[in-house]
Amino acid sequence: AQLALERDYETQREMETRYRVLMEVSRDPVLMVSMSTGRITDINPAAAQLLGGTRADLLGSAVAQEFEGRRRGELLDNLATMAIAEGSAAIELMARRSQKRMFLTPTLFRAAGERLLLCQLDTSEREALGADELG
Amino acid sequence: AQLALERDYETQREMETRYRVLMEVSRDPVLMVSMSTGRITDINPAAAQLLGGTRADLLGSAVAQEFEGRRRGELLDNLATMAIAEGSAAIELMARRSQKRMFLTPTLFRAAGERLLLCQLDTSEREALGADELG
Repeated sequence: AQLALERDYETQREMETRYRVLMEVSRDPVLMVSMSTGRITDINPAAAQLLGGTRADLLGSAVAQEFEGRRRGELLDNLATMAIAEGSAAIELMARRSQKRMFLTPTLFRAAGERLLLCQLDTSEREALGADELG
Repeated sequence: AQLALERDYETQREMETRYRVLMEVSRDPVLMVSMSTGRITDINPAAAQLLGGTRADLLGSAVAQEFEGRRRGELLDNLATMAIAEGSAAIELMARRSQKRMFLTPTLFRAAGERLLLCQLDTSEREALGADELG
């Protein structure tokens, strides 16, 4: 059982590496938000560029603060509601730092007992909605 | 120490979930290839669609078999060489199932002692090379 646990542990470590490499190279701008704190827990270079900051600037910041005119609870609730609605939906927002308009497509999931929101960013609506067709 | 190990284990499990969700929803077509076997160990829906198969069809298949005119060792060697070269480089190939031309951009990494190749697919050269600018 100990050996099985160790093998399992190795597999998990491999998954972490895969996750980090995938985030780093993905051309799909993506960020992860903790539903309990509303803060950005991870963001890839493509998303940081769109938002107009570095990864270091954006990690740990409140996601609602990164967009114009959105209060924290309101934005999180909207995103969570959209994520569990049928079909894919995107919300249009303006990034505070870059002053760029973009669409957020949210996906809600649970990991290690915590609710996380994966947000994909897009500067065109076509692509934001196109995600559905790829599924 | 046991408690620390358990917390660590929970973190790893969370990373696996993040990895799976990210692969599933990413609009960036991506596949993972084992360098030791040359087989596809993971592929997301966006990449499966471009290659013209389902995830089930493509999982475990030899990556070189999915493209026209490429022998297994040759393709793997080319991709690995490109991955470690400076700057990002893409290789143009035709997918066997879909008969679509596309560019592969490889990233080589090591996880749990195994060498893995992450391949991003693109139907336009502009996007394949654009990846560099986002970094």
